Amino acid sequence: MIFASDNWAGAHPAIAAGLARHAAGHARAYGNGDLDRSVKDTFSAIFEREVAVFFVSTGTAANALSLVAVNKPGGVAFCHREAHMTEDEAGAPEYFTGGARLCRVDGPLGRMSPAELDRAVQRYPAEFVHSGRPMAISVTQATEVGTVYSLDELDAVASVARRHGLPFHMDGARFANALVSLEATPAEMTWKRGVDMLSFGGTKNGCWCAEAVVLFDPAMAAEFAFIHKRAAQLFSKARFVSAQFEAYLQDGLWLETARHANAMASRLADALRAGASVRLAWEPQANEVFAIMGQDVAERLQRRGAVFYPWHAPAGFDAPMAPDESIYRFVTSFATTPEEVDAFRALL
Amino acid sequence: MIFASDNWAGAHPAIAAGLARHAAGHARAYGNGDLDRSVKDTFSAIFEREVAVFFVSTGTAANALSLVAVNKPGGVAFCHREAHMTEDEAGAPEYFTGGARLCRVDGPLGRMSPAELDRAVQRYPAEFVHSGRPMAISVTQATEVGTVYSLDELDAVASVARRHGLPFHMDGARFANALVSLEATPAEMTWKRGVDMLSFGGTKNGCWCAEAVVLFDPAMAAEFAFIHKRAAQLFSKARFVSAQFEAYLQDGLWLETARHANAMASRLADALRAGASVRLAWEPQANEVFAIMGQDVAERLQRRGAVFYPWHAPAGFDAPMAPDESIYRFVTSFATTPEEVDAFRALL
Amino acid sequence: MIFASDNWAGAHPAIAAGLARHAAGHARAYGNGDLDRSVKDTFSAIFEREVAVFFVSTGTAANALSLVAVNKPGGVAFCHREAHMTEDEAGAPEYFTGGARLCRVDGPLGRMSPAELDRAVQRYPAEFVHSGRPMAISVTQATEVGTVYSLDELDAVASVARRHGLPFHMDGARFANALVSLEATPAEMTWKRGVDMLSFGGTKNGCWCAEAVVLFDPAMAAEFAFIHKRAAQLFSKARFVSAQFEAYLQDGLWLETARHANAMASRLADALRAGASVRLAWEPQANEVFAIMGQDVAERLQRRGAVFYPWHAPAGFDAPMAPDESIYRFVTSFATTPEEVDAFRALL
Amino acid sequence: MIFASDNWAGAHPAIAAGLARHAAGHARAYGNGDLDRSVKDTFSAIFEREVAVFFVSTGTAANALSLVAVNKPGGVAFCHREAHMTEDEAGAPEYFTGGARLCRVDGPLGRMSPAELDRAVQRYPAEFVHSGRPMAISVTQATEVGTVYSLDELDAVASVARRHGLPFHMDGARFANALVSLEATPAEMTWKRGVDMLSFGGTKNGCWCAEAVVLFDPAMAAEFAFIHKRAAQLFSKARFVSAQFEAYLQDGLWLETARHANAMASRLADALRAGASVRLAWEPQANEVFAIMGQDVAERLQRRGAVFYPWHAPAGFDAPMAPDESIYRFVTSFATTPEEVDAFRALL
Repeated sequence: MIFASDNWAGAHPAIAAGLARHAAGHARAYGNGDLDRSVKDTFSAIFEREVAVFFVSTGTAANALSLVAVNKPGGVAFCHREAHMTEDEAGAPEYFTGGARLCRVDGPLGRMSPAELDRAVQRYPAEFVHSGRPMAISVTQATEVGTVYSLDELDAVASVARRHGLPFHMDGARFANALVSLEATPAEMTWKRGVDMLSFGGTKNGCWCAEAVVLFDPAMAAEFAFIHKRAAQLFSKARFVSAQFEAYLQDGLWLETARHANAMASRLADALRAGASVRLAWEPQANEVFAIMGQDVAERLQRRGAVFYPWHAPAGFDAPMAPDESIYRFVTSFATTPEEVDAFRALL
Repeated sequence: MIFASDNWAGAHPAIAAGLARHAAGHARAYGNGDLDRSVKDTFSAIFEREVAVFFVSTGTAANALSLVAVNKPGGVAFCHREAHMTEDEAGAPEYFTGGARLCRVDGPLGRMSPAELDRAVQRYPAEFVHSGRPMAISVTQATEVGTVYSLDELDAVASVARRHGLPFHMDGARFANALVSLEATPAEMTWKRGVDMLSFGGTKNGCWCAEAVVLFDPAMAAEFAFIHKRAAQLFSKARFVSAQFEAYLQDGLWLETARHANAMASRLADALRAGASVRLAWEPQANEVFAIMGQDVAERLQRRGAVFYPWHAPAGFDAPMAPDESIYRFVTSFATTPEEVDAFRALL
Repeated sequence: MIFASDNWAGAHPAIAAGLARHAAGHARAYGNGDLDRSVKDTFSAIFEREVAVFFVSTGTAANALSLVAVNKPGGVAFCHREAHMTEDEAGAPEYFTGGARLCRVDGPLGRMSPAELDRAVQRYPAEFVHSGRPMAISVTQATEVGTVYSLDELDAVASVARRHGLPFHMDGARFANALVSLEATPAEMTWKRGVDMLSFGGTKNGCWCAEAVVLFDPAMAAEFAFIHKRAAQLFSKARFVSAQFEAYLQDGLWLETARHANAMASRLADALRAGASVRLAWEPQANEVFAIMGQDVAERLQRRGAVFYPWHAPAGFDAPMAPDESIYRFVTSFATTPEEVDAFRALL
Repeated sequence: MIFASDNWAGAHPAIAAGLARHAAGHARAYGNGDLDRSVKDTFSAIFEREVAVFFVSTGTAANALSLVAVNKPGGVAFCHREAHMTEDEAGAPEYFTGGARLCRVDGPLGRMSPAELDRAVQRYPAEFVHSGRPMAISVTQATEVGTVYSLDELDAVASVARRHGLPFHMDGARFANALVSLEATPAEMTWKRGVDMLSFGGTKNGCWCAEAVVLFDPAMAAEFAFIHKRAAQLFSKARFVSAQFEAYLQDGLWLETARHANAMASRLADALRAGASVRLAWEPQANEVFAIMGQDVAERLQRRGAVFYPWHAPAGFDAPMAPDESIYRFVTSFATTPEEVDAFRALL
């Protein structure tokens, strides 16, 4: 009953097998091998257009370097108040950009309100040097609190970006979970909505360490190659990432693992809905479930082997809670089993 | 006959098996799992003292963050003119330190001359703000040109560092190759010589992606934890590195692969010595061999399947060469076979 | 009737005369001349303890370099939501620190609420690498909206700083205006309250270009000398700043100009209080006055020669305003005359 | 007999008078006043084309921000081995660019050899991420050792820049001294030679603090405005710089002071040539004179009131010197008098 985080899982057997399969033999280093090129072609196929792909070691690197790619002196990027890049990356985006700033925008349940976003951008008039100037907009899809922007909601954000001439970034640490939740294609959820740069995460969904920056304008690649190398993110044996992505993207494995994780989250939500002393905090849309319960209830569950953690109430969340109640987060993954969920249900 | 680079190899079978063995099951993320802790203990055992260990994605990251750990406003680090950090990292050390500088020091065949080093340091008087000030000394062991500092030579460098109160860093991208070349212990080649920070490389010697910063003063760890996370180098599933290092360090596998690579380099050197139209550029001490030959000879060998590349003459190298001759580099690895070397010899 | 900003004034005649007096003759460069040393001694005398003083070109430089002096990887500095450093410096603090972040804290009328501040600091637990960690607290005295922290209020902020072990910075771009408003001594308003670093502004109060970083722990000077030079802030002819400060600090000129500016603000507030179609937004405590009026009223005044600008409502300000009303800012300086104020009053 | 440095002088009487003249009255802040605009127009007139001008506080700031204006990830700028930006700015160019590097190029007496420059640039192939890539070329005119690039020599450097598509920067801390030495026009010595960015220095030649970045492509101004503000270099009372430049540029004062300083250098060179126990190290072309003498001779002169300092031998300088001999630098300025020089001659 491990619901601590999707990064507590290891690697999917098919991913592990892929790595083992490519362990032998020589290949050109630094991403120039045959497998590397073939995997990058697969990305283009999946996104239905030519894309530039750069492997990085962490989602933090993917987010930070995406912003570096559109960095400006005095630049300000806009993201949700609780976005990973502003809450959980120790200032990496600010560090890699040499001091660009993140402006935190409000909105219910992890999604920026387009109206709030527009107001926030307007507080930085494009030529007023004292305040600095807007440089990018970033959404997290799926969000930090297990919700998903609908395609229409992405359009609304994109239209703010377009109106102000700003590049549009998507933090897709849980990209696949959002994708299967929306039943959209990768193209529909990204460049068809105006997304320019994507942090494409494989690690949480079954890989060991497979993250990439996807640039929908391949002309950005020449510049990004230096951004990437200078940031110490150019793997010498890039093959070890390619091997993971090859297995991940083959025959829809990535969608299957995401569907599984989301289904386990639904099953868990059902269990929580049915529980006597717990209730859902809000409806899950991907692979994270948030519940409200008393501290004593939580401790009892934890003592009996369920692993999960408290979470702070999102800004704007104002459902009534008793004084001893808190919000708790449960995350499912490719490795979560129905039996685990049912065992947890039994505990409840 | 792949002598292009040791990073053209894949993963050693034992490393691949280690990864596969740990693929299943859950573990705490971000380096806090049982395996992670156990592997870090192994590092302390190997170095015969308590050390702090941080996994990073590339040797470039290891070097850059080692310098960040001792960074100072106006700081200047000293390394050999041809060190990887100044020649091949696209300015990553300067980038991660926010503009610290590298001062290139001369010395024969990849090793800084202690006298030159001392002169270089003295050109930055410690309190003269205009020039900036010394902040670190870095050696590469084994060097970029396949040579190795003897323990006495390391002592000589360390004594310059000590005299000026400077932290001492070792770039050990090919640490194991140097170690077995000297028949020294890890402790003897590092902190017993005064080394404070080590870039410990496993990738070139049989891992997929296993690099670490080793700090010999564990009190530096509290600060380094933020340096590490901010640099986007904190792996969520750190287990994938731990699994590699576990296998790598077990039963001396890492020394065995290094000994093999070095032995293959010796065998290759013998072949080159015996060749009619080629000659050794200098004596190899680790797993890189440099030869002088005419361009026509090189092309003939390459056409017949040998993969190797030209290399620029190191500063100060002045052996006579005919106008059409160049220096070529041959690198061996755990994956190089005696048969490959012998086939190459036959070509010669 | 120029109430646009105190930096629209030129230099006080005594400052201009001071510059002229020192124009001839030679002196050691880079702040090592006799006058430079004597002026720095004057700072120590004024603050009743030995301080280290570094001249900088702008208040933005003073703020940014004060933070660099206590910079940490992953660091977060706390300041009021409307502080100059976060609103009006184009990201200079983030840039000079290489990506440290500013966390905006709420509080009425430009002053941080100590309770809000404490809550904000607590959101960055000192050893949790994901969020980063607190590194400094900064107050603006006088604030951006013409109010002043009382000594007790400074104590309350200082006690949060002390509790969390954080350095305490004061942005004193309008230091003298606050000082005479409180009738406190420089020591009482700074280090006796726990202030560690002060941005000491002379420009707005009668100088041409005279800003300084004052460090209350002189042991910080050795490190700061490199921070200062690396930031391109070491003037070669530092004498030109010393000459201004010499005149500024002599015989209490700086307190006299500040008292005059504050008195003119009071006189202006009286005028606004008495005006038919305008009202004070809040009580001024230094040399800035904020009034509420209709746009038509403002335009009429501007057409008749009064120069002043609209200002956004401070966070938390909720006095009732009619739809066409706005807040306007009026700033007085050493150069404001009673006649100007009275002429403006006549317009009202 | 002050020959220590041209920044030991104060301000020229006409500059001091200019500052005094503009001290009274109000003007728009941040460089938007009438005087500011008029002075910027004067720059365009002097350079015979529309230029963008930004005032900065130091020559170090001018150099660093010029490089920021053309900064690139992995970028390397090329300058002479002894250029001020690489020897005397505590790493400011590297700091402000967030880690761009300076590559030191050899050449006799402070001037880069175009052939050496070309070789240096070629060591950074434009698309090879490992090494990084060229981003700018910088010359110092007049050089650090009192020599001047001829117009032909500037053309030769410019042609290397053009061949590699690199922006061309000139560090003109002693711009006027070089200009009158060549009897060239400002246009002839800059954009007509291909210079893109100029650090225009007034401080050493009679101002208190008047330095500017001149951009010959005014389209760079929109971006540079943010670079400038973010670097804490936007003066609020910019008028104090404008007032200096107005006087400096009026009726050719700047050329007159430079001609005077150069003439004093010639007179001093004559004195040194005639001296029994001293000799010229090389022929001066601007306002710096270098002489060789024994330490005892130097000390005797210093005891008798001459102020000057030893200087390290430039790279490549190999004139014979006795063991106790050193090179000494003498700098003249607008404030040097013939009487001072003659008194020094009498000492010799």
